[in-house]
This record gives sequence, C-alpha cells and structure tokens, in this order.
Amino acid sequence: MTVAPPTTASARLLGLLARDLPPDRLTTDPAALAAYATDRSGTRPDGLPLAVAHARRTEEVAVTLRHAHALRVPVVPRGAGTGLSGGATAGEGALVLDLSRMNRILELSLDDQLAVVEPGVITAELDRAAGGHGLRYAPDPASAALSTIGGNIATNAGGLRCAKYGVTRDSVLGLEAVLADGTVVRTGRRTVKGVTGYDLTALLTGSEGTLAVITSATLRLRPVPVATATLAAYFASFEAAAEASYALTRAGVEPALAELVDGPVLGAVDPALRERGAALLLVQCDGAGAEIEAAAVSRLLAPLATAVETTADPAEAEALLAARRLALPALERLGRPLIEDIAVPRSRLAEAAREIRAVSARHDVPVFTLAHAADGNLHPIIVVDPSLPRLPDAAWEAAGEIFALALRLGGTLTGEHGVGVLKRQWVADELGPAAHSLQRRLKEAFDPRGILNPGKCL
Amino acid sequence: MTVAPPTTASARLLGLLARDLPPDRLTTDPAALAAYATDRSGTRPDGLPLAVAHARRTEEVAVTLRHAHALRVPVVPRGAGTGLSGGATAGEGALVLDLSRMNRILELSLDDQLAVVEPGVITAELDRAAGGHGLRYAPDPASAALSTIGGNIATNAGGLRCAKYGVTRDSVLGLEAVLADGTVVRTGRRTVKGVTGYDLTALLTGSEGTLAVITSATLRLRPVPVATATLAAYFASFEAAAEASYALTRAGVEPALAELVDGPVLGAVDPALRERGAALLLVQCDGAGAEIEAAAVSRLLAPLATAVETTADPAEAEALLAARRLALPALERLGRPLIEDIAVPRSRLAEAAREIRAVSARHDVPVFTLAHAADGNLHPIIVVDPSLPRLPDAAWEAAGEIFALALRLGGTLTGEHGVGVLKRQWVADELGPAAHSLQRRLKEAFDPRGILNPGKCL
Repeated sequence: MTVAPPTTASARLLGLLARDLPPDRLTTDPAALAAYATDRSGTRPDGLPLAVAHARRTEEVAVTLRHAHALRVPVVPRGAGTGLSGGATAGEGALVLDLSRMNRILELSLDDQLAVVEPGVITAELDRAAGGHGLRYAPDPASAALSTIGGNIATNAGGLRCAKYGVTRDSVLGLEAVLADGTVVRTGRRTVKGVTGYDLTALLTGSEGTLAVITSATLRLRPVPVATATLAAYFASFEAAAEASYALTRAGVEPALAELVDGPVLGAVDPALRERGAALLLVQCDGAGAEIEAAAVSRLLAPLATAVETTADPAEAEALLAARRLALPALERLGRPLIEDIAVPRSRLAEAAREIRAVSARHDVPVFTLAHAADGNLHPIIVVDPSLPRLPDAAWEAAGEIFALALRLGGTLTGEHGVGVLKRQWVADELGPAAHSLQRRLKEAFDPRGILNPGKCL
Repeated sequence: MTVAPPTTASARLLGLLARDLPPDRLTTDPAALAAYATDRSGTRPDGLPLAVAHARRTEEVAVTLRHAHALRVPVVPRGAGTGLSGGATAGEGALVLDLSRMNRILELSLDDQLAVVEPGVITAELDRAAGGHGLRYAPDPASAALSTIGGNIATNAGGLRCAKYGVTRDSVLGLEAVLADGTVVRTGRRTVKGVTGYDLTALLTGSEGTLAVITSATLRLRPVPVATATLAAYFASFEAAAEASYALTRAGVEPALAELVDGPVLGAVDPALRERGAALLLVQCDGAGAEIEAAAVSRLLAPLATAVETTADPAEAEALLAARRLALPALERLGRPLIEDIAVPRSRLAEAAREIRAVSARHDVPVFTLAHAADGNLHPIIVVDPSLPRLPDAAWEAAGEIFALALRLGGTLTGEHGVGVLKRQWVADELGPAAHSLQRRLKEAFDPRGILNPGKCL
C-alpha cells in the first residue's frame, strides 16, 4: 500500500470533500476523532484518523472514495463500531467513512419477503420492522441492538439463530457497493435463486470493508415461526454439556439455537445461576414441530443433565435466555474482555473446551467460555485488567494457543467476528500460502491502490 | 484470450501429457472425441476438441493445467456432461479435462455430518451412501442420478429440495481446486461457520469451470427428516396453481419442495394426468412438524384447487412426484427440449407464466413449463424438431423474450443451470457494465491467460 505524505494529500482530500459533500458531513475536531480511532475490540492504533466523512447517500460515498483513491488516502468504513476484532479501527491519517447515518429501510416487501436497506440500519430495528408483518430478519448477532446491517455483512456476522437459519451471508440476496475508485456496482438479485456470473454478493460478505463499501443490501426475510419451545439444561461440567449438545446433533435434531454457557460466566451473570450447575445448555426449537422436537430434546438431555426445564411461553423463554444475553455485559463489569471466536468441527467441542481450560491454567489467565454449540463456535473470553496500558503477554500467548488449537482440531480462527487486526498474524496459517496469495490477488483486482481498510482481514 | 497456433502448441501439449500422465489417461481418437464436444444442452461447437485427459488424481489435474497454461491451450473441465447450458461443450483445439473418473468418496463423517468427495462422484450415489447412516446430501438436481458433484458445484445446481435446504452452495463447506497455472488451493473448512479471509468457496461455486478446476469438495450432510408428508393439488389453470403456491409463501409455510407442472407437460407425461387438471402443484413438508404443516397446506389449497391428495406414505409420495420426475424424459420423446431457467420474485410467478404463454402464442412455438414454485424458478421448455440442423429463429426469439421478461420482472436469466454458452449474450444486460467489468477482472486474477473454459459464463 502506498500512502501519500500526510500534509499534501490529506489537506487536498479535506478540501475536496468540503467542496463536494453537502454541509455538516465532515468531522475534523481531534476530540471527536478519538472515538472513531477504536471499536468495541478496545484496540487503539497509533495516532488519530484524519477526519470522519458521514455519508448519507450512495453518491456521497462514491465521491468520497473517488477523491481518496485519486490521492491514495486510506479509508476505513465504519458502522456502529461494535466489531470485536478491530476491523473498524482507524490509525494516523486514515479517513473514516461513517455509514451509520445511511439508516433508511428503503423497502419492506411482504410479497417477496425481503427488505432493501441502507447499511446503517440497526439490525434489531430491521427485525422489529419486519416483525410488524409476521416476518423476521433471521441473523441475530449478540450485538443486534447496536450493530448495523452493513457491519454485520462486513463480518458475515452469526448469532444465536444461525444454528438453523444460517449466517448473515445466507440472508443477503444482493448488494449495492462502491468500489475503491468510486464506481457503483450492484451484485445479486431479488430472487431467492440465481447463478448469473460469479457470486460477488458472497465475496463481499465477510470482506471486512477491504473490497468495497456497501451502500445498500437486499435481505431475505423469513416468516416468524408459528411456535417456539425453549429448554434450559444444567450439567455437572462444561464438557458434559458439550457432549450433550453434540448428542442432539448426532440424533438428527436441528434446533433453532443451542447455546452453551460455562460456570464462570454463569457466576458473573448471577451467582444463583452458578449454584444450579457448572454449565448451562439452552436449546430452542421452532416451527410447526417445535413441541415435538423439544420433547425429543428433553428425552435426550434428561439422562445427561442434572436438571431440564422446558417452556413454550415467550416471556419464560426470554428469562431462560437472559443468562446468555447478559453474559458479555456481566464480563465487561469484571474487566476488559478479549473475545475469541474459534469454530471447530462439532464432534470436537468438548475436546476444545477441555484444552481451553488447560491453556487458561497454564498461563494463569482466566478464560470464560460461551459457545454456539450447534455450530461448534466457541467464544473463549479472556478478561484482563482494564487499567493495564496494553494486553499482558500471558493473554496474547493464551490467545495464540487457542488459535493453534482451533486449527489443530480442523477448525478456524474466527467463526463470525472476522479477522480484523487482532487475528491477522494467524491468517496465513489457516489459509495456506496458495490461497492466501490468491486472496491478495483478488484484493488487488478490487482495490489496486490498497486504500480500503488497509491492514485488516488478510 | 490468446490461443496458440494449433499445430505446435497442441502437438507439444499432447507429447507432454503422454510423458507426464500415467498410461491410459488420454483419448485422441476423433470418433471418441465427438461425444466430448457437446453436452446435454445439445449445443455443438465447430470442430472437435484436441483430446480428452481423464484425470484420476489431483496431481494429474495439476500437471495437465501446468502444461496447458504454459502452452496457452484452452481447457474445458467436464463431469458427466449433463449441463443444460452448454458449459461443458468443447470446440476445435480445446483440451477436455474429464473429472468423471475421480469418483471416490474420500470420507463420510457421521460425527461431523460431512463428506469429502472427489468431483466425479455421482450426486445420487453420495446421497445413497449418506442415507445408509441416517444422513442425506440435500441438493437434488433433477439430474442427480447422472450428474456429478463437481458439475453441480460448477453450476451451483438447485433442485427440488432447495425450497427448504438451499442450493448447492449452501451445502459446500470447502473445496480443493487447481488454478489455471497448476497451483493447488484449498478453500473453506470443515466447520459449519467460518469467516477467515474471503469466501472463495462461494466464488468458485457457480463459476462454471472458468476460475479453477475443483478436485475435492467438503460437503455438508443433514439428518434424514423424521417424517415427510406429500400433497398433490390440481388446478383449473397454471396461473391459479402459481397463485396458490404463492399463497403458501405468504402464509409463512416453508415446504421442503413445491413443484408446479403445467397442463402440456402433464399431457406429455400421461394423458390421464392431463384430464385431472390444467396444472399440478406438488408440495412436500418434512421434519417433526411435517403432518401439522401438510394439514395447513391442505387447508390453504382446498378452496383454490379442484382436488387435493395427501399422503405420508413414501411409496405413494414417490408416485405423486413421478409426474414431475418424468417430465423431462417425456418431453425428450417429443423433440429436442431447449430448457430455460429463469427465476423471478415469488410474487411474480403467475404473471411470468401468463407472459410466457403470450410469448409462445406470438412466435407459434410450443412452450412447456415446470417451476420450482417456492423459489420463483421457472423452466419454460421449448421443444423443437430434432431433425432441424439448428434451432429455428422463432425458438431463439421466444427464448430472448423470456429472458427479457425475467429481467423486467426483477428476476434472473438462470436460477440453477448456469449461463454456459446459451445465455451468454444476455449476461451483460443482467449484471450491468460495472459488475460485468469487475467480474472480468476477477477472472483475470484467477486465470490471466484465459485458458479455463473460454467463452463460457461471462
């Protein structure tokens, strides 16, 4: 990547943006810029970004990129800044392109069960708007109340319901995006199927703002299930809970969600929960067969668990799920959480949990673990003292061993949070040299000057 | 694309392949080559291919591509040749790379509900092998008994069950592929989730052999549903049947399949069927809630249909589905079928059917129509006199109007068969110039010399 010397190119870019964008689109006050340097990962690069451009229309994104491309100034696209891997962090001299004000739901088609939205729409707000018509947006990352659709697409966000309904990619039918040089492209379609040309929609989904800036998304909506049944089962150990969740997979049950919460997390949420068991498995079944499936789940779990509760009542179900939803806020009260996101083949879940505990003990680093059990996606969370100026070496070493473990078990560094900056040093190990080099060639085909979110993802 | 003069480069390539491939891997007999020039689309380019290389191992694919790349000889990858768009046709001077003998199931993991297979495995055989363990491979293109996994991935094949279980892409977790220059790359993973790097697995799926040659695929298997219920409903018109299927979508029903068969097709399959109605809608529900869902479907269809039959018996269900499964063979008895594959937003299905009938009348070309109704994917089939040396102009004009119709309704040229050579002239209309040019740059990043399946897809 070639970046122009700060004075000339930066000053010229700010001049051009001031000339070509509507008023009130630029933030250059250093006090205000500090918040845009970092994201929820807590990572903060050196220096401050040059400015923030708050785009409200596709044409504003296009003109911003056209000038930045001509002047070779790096651009960091940003939604709500809730990313956990540092993908939206912006260092010295970068222009932050804030999409959070492009937040209109442009269309909600009940006829075709889809929505067309701008990237700054909050995920939960789309789901709520769809819910008024008996539909829903299936992906539900834990950040849904804060995070934007654009950010969800950039990281191919997962969530709880992806056990049954897939990840963000599975709900994206088409995109409008602006390339590094300001060209507007449209990918995909409004139909549920289609194979004309290469699948650029899937390629952009999960590309962490390094290939193009998404300015609109056509999203699949699904009917709200006719029925839902929720179970909470407590276990004597996390491994026992992991084995039980795997027993459901082996028995052919496909729950809408299956969440594992370990004892330390339960203790952080509510000491009374911790007393009920050393691990909690939450399972939700939905659709016409929800009750039948939940009964099958209950039969499978009963001999393995210390207690199983079932409810078909939505309010009771939310109370059961609260232990999962409150986990991250509870851990944030204990310190600064460094949230890992490995995924392993589902049969290796218990083994992964056992090894993670060994890593924790070896480095004397407390690790709290949540898991999307039906996907084999574990979130081992290292909580560090927030007063420390940087992450202690022991935390980095533990994180590195957890990544190595994931790859050794046939898994991946990141199931749903993205690589960002935090996992970049391990990417080549997972991809292998040939695929890594091919991915870099693709990046060049999209962004030959390397201005889009440099230093992220690959 | 630059192709070397036939004499020198072709002769040198054959010499190198004879030297570097094991014995019995090359076919050069012109009589045998003729079959490899065409595929099930019936399209036959000018001239004969240079030779066929029958690879049995990834290394053989790699060495073949390395030499072809060095000598700039075009290579046409081929599975079973069941493609309907001409994607596997091979003209003068091309080397056909036959993958059908790479047909081993390398792994069938019940633990992780996945299979690792070579590209020449027949789709139905994988499904059968999985079925022995209570699992199945969900995608079921109508060609499943003949077509290969590699070909299915190359076209991102659909099928009947994708109404609920998605297209081929939704079952591909990872790939091994050989790039144009002979480099072997691995994409994706064995886990159900993962976002490290760009989604090359999705990019290769549906790329019609123009980006790389797939040599192995890691495929998701799913549990065989615990129950299935099947309905057959007859209607007074195709539009009425289309409206009824759309009523199911609007009511939030998500069947495992929903197939529409029009009156002319019914007549071709069995005149007795045609007497039962002017159109047939077949619906299958599966999973724990199958019977409950089927009852809801029956209630919704009853006031709209002339007759509704329901069965939970697998043999009776197969008999009901026979009208759909036998459609293509029946039409092949009438002439040479030119099978279109447009998809439209589901709300426009009846409108599309009505317009297709108008096109048929205007050009005096008989059009038979099948549809994967839940996906909005229509197969208007023009049957032409097989004794004609080429397709009559009226058939081409009708096909062109059907493509234009699909785009006008917000749809796509091809839902699941691919562009191949037959739809190439309309691709730019659908993609638009910016996305088309971006796709060409991606092609160059993969295959700078343009040797892989030139003249297809884009």
